[in-house]
Amino acid sequence: MKAEIITIGDEILIGQIVDTNSQWIGKELNKIGVSVYQISSVQDERAHILSALKEAQSRVNIVIITGGLGPTKDDITKKTIATYFNDSHVVNYPEVIENIKRLFEKYNHPFNEVQKYQAELPSKATLLMNDLGTAPGMWFYENETVFVSLPGVPYEMKGLMKAHVIPRIQKQFKLPHIIHKTIITYGQGESVIASRIEAWEEALPNFIKLAYLPSFGRVRLRLSAKGEHRKTLEEALEKELETLKSLIPDIVAGYDEGETIEKQLGNLLKQKGLTIGTAESMTGGKIGANLISVPGSSAYFKGGFTVYTEETKKKMLNIPAEIIDEYSVISKEVAEAMAINCRKKLDVDYAVSVTGNAGPTTDSNTKDVGQVFIGIATDKEVEVHEFNFGSPRERVINKTVNKAFELLLKKNM
Amino acid sequence: MKAEIITIGDEILIGQIVDTNSQWIGKELNKIGVSVYQISSVQDERAHILSALKEAQSRVNIVIITGGLGPTKDDITKKTIATYFNDSHVVNYPEVIENIKRLFEKYNHPFNEVQKYQAELPSKATLLMNDLGTAPGMWFYENETVFVSLPGVPYEMKGLMKAHVIPRIQKQFKLPHIIHKTIITYGQGESVIASRIEAWEEALPNFIKLAYLPSFGRVRLRLSAKGEHRKTLEEALEKELETLKSLIPDIVAGYDEGETIEKQLGNLLKQKGLTIGTAESMTGGKIGANLISVPGSSAYFKGGFTVYTEETKKKMLNIPAEIIDEYSVISKEVAEAMAINCRKKLDVDYAVSVTGNAGPTTDSNTKDVGQVFIGIATDKEVEVHEFNFGSPRERVINKTVNKAFELLLKKNM
Repeated sequence: MKAEIITIGDEILIGQIVDTNSQWIGKELNKIGVSVYQISSVQDERAHILSALKEAQSRVNIVIITGGLGPTKDDITKKTIATYFNDSHVVNYPEVIENIKRLFEKYNHPFNEVQKYQAELPSKATLLMNDLGTAPGMWFYENETVFVSLPGVPYEMKGLMKAHVIPRIQKQFKLPHIIHKTIITYGQGESVIASRIEAWEEALPNFIKLAYLPSFGRVRLRLSAKGEHRKTLEEALEKELETLKSLIPDIVAGYDEGETIEKQLGNLLKQKGLTIGTAESMTGGKIGANLISVPGSSAYFKGGFTVYTEETKKKMLNIPAEIIDEYSVISKEVAEAMAINCRKKLDVDYAVSVTGNAGPTTDSNTKDVGQVFIGIATDKEVEVHEFNFGSPRERVINKTVNKAFELLLKKNM
Repeated sequence: MKAEIITIGDEILIGQIVDTNSQWIGKELNKIGVSVYQISSVQDERAHILSALKEAQSRVNIVIITGGLGPTKDDITKKTIATYFNDSHVVNYPEVIENIKRLFEKYNHPFNEVQKYQAELPSKATLLMNDLGTAPGMWFYENETVFVSLPGVPYEMKGLMKAHVIPRIQKQFKLPHIIHKTIITYGQGESVIASRIEAWEEALPNFIKLAYLPSFGRVRLRLSAKGEHRKTLEEALEKELETLKSLIPDIVAGYDEGETIEKQLGNLLKQKGLTIGTAESMTGGKIGANLISVPGSSAYFKGGFTVYTEETKKKMLNIPAEIIDEYSVISKEVAEAMAINCRKKLDVDYAVSVTGNAGPTTDSNTKDVGQVFIGIATDKEVEVHEFNFGSPRERVINKTVNKAFELLLKKNM
């Protein structure tokens, strides 16, 4: 079963916002065996939306439309969908008004007459109640194709998908199974890996696909199997996975269970009853911010020092001036002292430290742009790793954060 | 002049990665007067790519394709584009090999024979040299349509766009001007604003468009003008902007100059020669991480305390146990003490503190999920603001970080 996602709104096309909705919808549909065949972002323009709907209907059986449902004049999705279905009749849903009044009361907004328009749906639409916002979702079924229209506000869209759209799709269609298994590799590039596993890749059965997903210093290898019998797929995938691992045993670092690296580290720390703290310079607190993106992280993350200047390194973490003067603020020695002192001050099992230059410029007395030292202190030892992550700034920061998590994950906790 | 962006790769469609490339390309094209008419993400599949190219050519004059240029078997873009142009002849570019060898040497990778394939381009392609990676870009011009194929790795794509694609597009086409002006408003919802400015909006000239961009507690109103004469557009836009401001003077908080809120705050602090520090609990370091996303932020950001547990609040920021016991760890009083003590310890002009519950669960002795206190301490005073940002976790954290920046920006520094 194939789906297409249509996002409506100029703000995506002019680059004002990143379309994270499609990614989330793609992931959720995949889980229930629906593959997203195409994502199309189109303008808030009647003719364009109409042709996008027509094209999508020619390609897939499930069309998910997001955006353009606000009460304002630049939101034309609802009218355009009604036109698409030749549906000029409008039905009024008083429960939608009740819900809007309830929400406005909760947030102390006065109710506004413009909102009444939200309760009017084309007669062919099935109402999908949106408890979290003012614009209801709509479900249409015509010529064996499902059309779903959802608001573009991410948490409202997600609420509607979970409560209504996913269960309805599962009821409407007989869906195949899709299973993914992803191996994480470190240390070799895409092309080297490709040449090592070429013969095996050529011989894969046609219901199993391999994809290379390189990102910030690691390559994930994703195997996807699709078919009707879950057990058969699982067995075939397991067999291929074992063969793949036996071909590149030296670079396999683990499985990617669809969990972020933050979640993986969190699970490990929680399981072992260990705690962690951070001492961050050039990442400015991002390692901590990523740690706490996981619910329940207070079980293992105690806190951290963000020491962005030489002064705060001395003041907050007692890094001796002599070490900084002798080795420079971006050095193995400073990273080491940061990790050791952070660990002591926070009384944690693991402390991770970072000092480096993210660019774009370098001071006279510091090291090259892109140079980074990451330290990890435990009760037994302290280790420091040196990297050069090049440029630009944003990439250096992200690579550093990822690498810190990777180094922590690799520790034999 | 209209463009379409086609991104190729299953990883976007199955939701494994977010498509940030399209957003960036959209923004850059917009600046030079090219509007993105559609973004299409399609599968790594020959027939699908071919039909996407055909559809795009029927809609626009500039087609930018990203992804699928790796040396591995799942990357089929180059062959498929050659098929699209009936181009079976291949040209070999030795400079591409030289570049790859240089890159591999720099990163200590052994050169791999698979890479040789990167140097072979369809004969109709113009080589766009990619100094940052192994896959070159390609430029095609047929039937008054430009096709550009770029690698999917963001910083390689950006390098090629800036060095080659943007200048070539400007040379190839006579482009109109597009100007945007965006007002930031706080405190009222989209529908209330809409009803206040309805008559004015109806009367806008047809070359000026208004868009509502709500996000995390503020609504940006974006006016876009498009036409041939820059000066005429600027004057008309300025006039409409003044009228708009006069209709809603109570909620206008400033202009959005396309700068992030972090950059705006950074500019202000730098201009006034002020410094800032952070004391973060439930945001885990994200305020600091956003502060340092701006190059040169060490001029005003000294550092911060991430105090994720009660223990670290006491240990790192000397928050008295009595205050925590009496008012709870999520309280006005704790936020106040965090800001004051942080300011003293770091010797900064401004200290911003955050304590709250991002959810998804709440401990017995803490407050409601979504409740947040943000404190700001200066040499004159300390203020604490209370919010309830609801749920889910990610949204509460983002709203808190945004609100902290907004409150700082509103201070009369």
